[in-house]
Amino acid sequence: MQPRRLRIGVAGLGRAFSLMLPTFLADRRVELVAACDPRAEARQQFAKEFSASTYADVRELAADPNVEAIYIASPHQFHAAHTEIAAARGKHVLVEKPMALTLAECDQMIDACRQAGVALIVGHCHSFDTPYLETRRLVASGEFGAIKMIHALNFTDYLYRPRRPEELSTAEGGGAVFSQAAHQVDIVRLLVGSPARRLRATVGRWDAERPTEGAYSAIIWFECGAFASVSYSGYGHFDSDEWMGWIGEMGAAKSPDAYGGARRRLATLQSPEQEARLKAEGTYGGASYKPPSPERLSFCHQHFGPMIVSCERGDLRPMADSIIVYGDMCSERRPVDLPSVPRREVIDELYAAVLEKAPPIHDGEWARGTLEICLAMLKSNEKEKDIEL
Amino acid sequence: MQPRRLRIGVAGLGRAFSLMLPTFLADRRVELVAACDPRAEARQQFAKEFSASTYADVRELAADPNVEAIYIASPHQFHAAHTEIAAARGKHVLVEKPMALTLAECDQMIDACRQAGVALIVGHCHSFDTPYLETRRLVASGEFGAIKMIHALNFTDYLYRPRRPEELSTAEGGGAVFSQAAHQVDIVRLLVGSPARRLRATVGRWDAERPTEGAYSAIIWFECGAFASVSYSGYGHFDSDEWMGWIGEMGAAKSPDAYGGARRRLATLQSPEQEARLKAEGTYGGASYKPPSPERLSFCHQHFGPMIVSCERGDLRPMADSIIVYGDMCSERRPVDLPSVPRREVIDELYAAVLEKAPPIHDGEWARGTLEICLAMLKSNEKEKDIEL
Repeated sequence: MQPRRLRIGVAGLGRAFSLMLPTFLADRRVELVAACDPRAEARQQFAKEFSASTYADVRELAADPNVEAIYIASPHQFHAAHTEIAAARGKHVLVEKPMALTLAECDQMIDACRQAGVALIVGHCHSFDTPYLETRRLVASGEFGAIKMIHALNFTDYLYRPRRPEELSTAEGGGAVFSQAAHQVDIVRLLVGSPARRLRATVGRWDAERPTEGAYSAIIWFECGAFASVSYSGYGHFDSDEWMGWIGEMGAAKSPDAYGGARRRLATLQSPEQEARLKAEGTYGGASYKPPSPERLSFCHQHFGPMIVSCERGDLRPMADSIIVYGDMCSERRPVDLPSVPRREVIDELYAAVLEKAPPIHDGEWARGTLEICLAMLKSNEKEKDIEL
Repeated sequence: MQPRRLRIGVAGLGRAFSLMLPTFLADRRVELVAACDPRAEARQQFAKEFSASTYADVRELAADPNVEAIYIASPHQFHAAHTEIAAARGKHVLVEKPMALTLAECDQMIDACRQAGVALIVGHCHSFDTPYLETRRLVASGEFGAIKMIHALNFTDYLYRPRRPEELSTAEGGGAVFSQAAHQVDIVRLLVGSPARRLRATVGRWDAERPTEGAYSAIIWFECGAFASVSYSGYGHFDSDEWMGWIGEMGAAKSPDAYGGARRRLATLQSPEQEARLKAEGTYGGASYKPPSPERLSFCHQHFGPMIVSCERGDLRPMADSIIVYGDMCSERRPVDLPSVPRREVIDELYAAVLEKAPPIHDGEWARGTLEICLAMLKSNEKEKDIEL
């Protein structure tokens, strides 16, 4: 029997959309029926590929009666406005992380969706990835006693991937704290399962040509007594996927021989405009865009770097295909079912929220909590002290 | 030509001594001529093995005219008193880390040695290990620009190795901050090469039967603008030597199949007294003591866990046999000469300080700086705020 398919309109056909597209293509519970984007070439490709309606403006998309839910994948600074536009037209909302740039925006988004009676889900975020959800299940089972400490790190080439200028401006929602801590903090919150109460953080900004946060370290304390140490560097040197079995963030095998690729490519560019053009060309509708093909699909779960979850009677280490359990007397690898559809966990929550009114994990309140921590990280760095949450 | 041999007396024939013994045996610049220890069986073995004088009391050792330098390897809480006794008799001092339990004690030790005109060196500490010294040389060379961030972690079974009761009491100098941060912080300070100015730390104590710090996380800020994130767990679950190529702390290959050994052995013991006895039996002079044999010797350098040193134009990763350099465009492994004598770096500094009056890196002022940070870590945890240094 065919499932009832949820009809999705996409607001923004950029990088975030291209990362979600394999999911939309493979998951039979959804179909793409409309999209908006300022780039005509992206609209043309979308219209052709999906025989779907396309618009230049999000208001037109929101007015499309065929659309049930809008996937908001526009640049960070538009998330709040676009969510309100969608909700005002009675559309359910799946909005990319980070939810917004301020807590006031989050509140407006939550209110708008509540008043309109529509679902609000924030993602994809890596805390949707099955190995983290399974690790949370193990923590909550009590098998290993109380959770006490998390150590999370991630060393990537984030800062040297092609960027639009605004992505390198913290004030516009760019940088590693808004873009990357949004994942790491969200995972840690999920795993601990208790509200964060305070934090201390510091950030690194040491490439004057990319003048936003490229690195950070933070300690976060939780009400249950656990603490987490989270660290990140996007400066494109050491690659911590080595400690994830050389499975990359997107769940695909990765070759250590590709070292330095992002920086080498960037070095061939002459200007920020050329870089933004390169990024646009590589995304949906662009001249060098590559559609998802079976051989390029991931075979493991996605992840956000090495993480060690210490409970009283064992450490848990979520991997891309398993959870390694380090117990008191022995260690074992507990396999996790491999994904048939990447990021299907996002559709699980969206579909259940819309069709079964099941409360999602990643709702507006949840995502607001993560943004609160990211903003507090920037503030702690600036004020040089702990920030209470 | 034979080098002039420095005549060393040993104060304390326990675990620290047994870890230094391979060095004393192999390095022809030193000879062991006397020792003191309260355990008669340890004195007997020493007297027999080295045809050397032995004493029950450190005052007698310090009075021995044949002794030029005293290696103080007594329990932490005696380091200060024993250093003063040695200095008062004109003996050079090599004292184990942690230097002492309070900064006042450090000051007394520094003063005593200065007034007596004797050298004071604190170690072995893992910051003596050649890969760290070589990494410091690379940082200082400027080849990779300014140092910006260090990420250091170490997950071990520290807390479950056989202990005397005092080693599980923070007030008596026990626990992971006094005993283990003393290594990690010392290495980080060496690598940054700039004074620490403030820190924020938190500790974990979650085994009521071993009621001292088993874990910690800290952020340390340095005057040069760099920061370090240091984390440790000694709770015997995940073993981060996996990320050091399965080379253990002592520089020897290690089998992942030995998982859980420390805890399994501990589970067979009935009482703290039995545990202390087991520890004593396994150390020098004890019934189950195993002398260093060629096949048990390390073949790599010693280390203190994974560490990533981020400079502006590259990350450096000190390993047990090399430094992995992650540059802007390529990465490479720069081999480090393997040790002919383990921990010979300690004798390098001691010998040069005594015979050539060369100022050591690891002098009293240096080690005081590390203790200041360890004490500040405990205070930051207690006061829940940054501590200025």
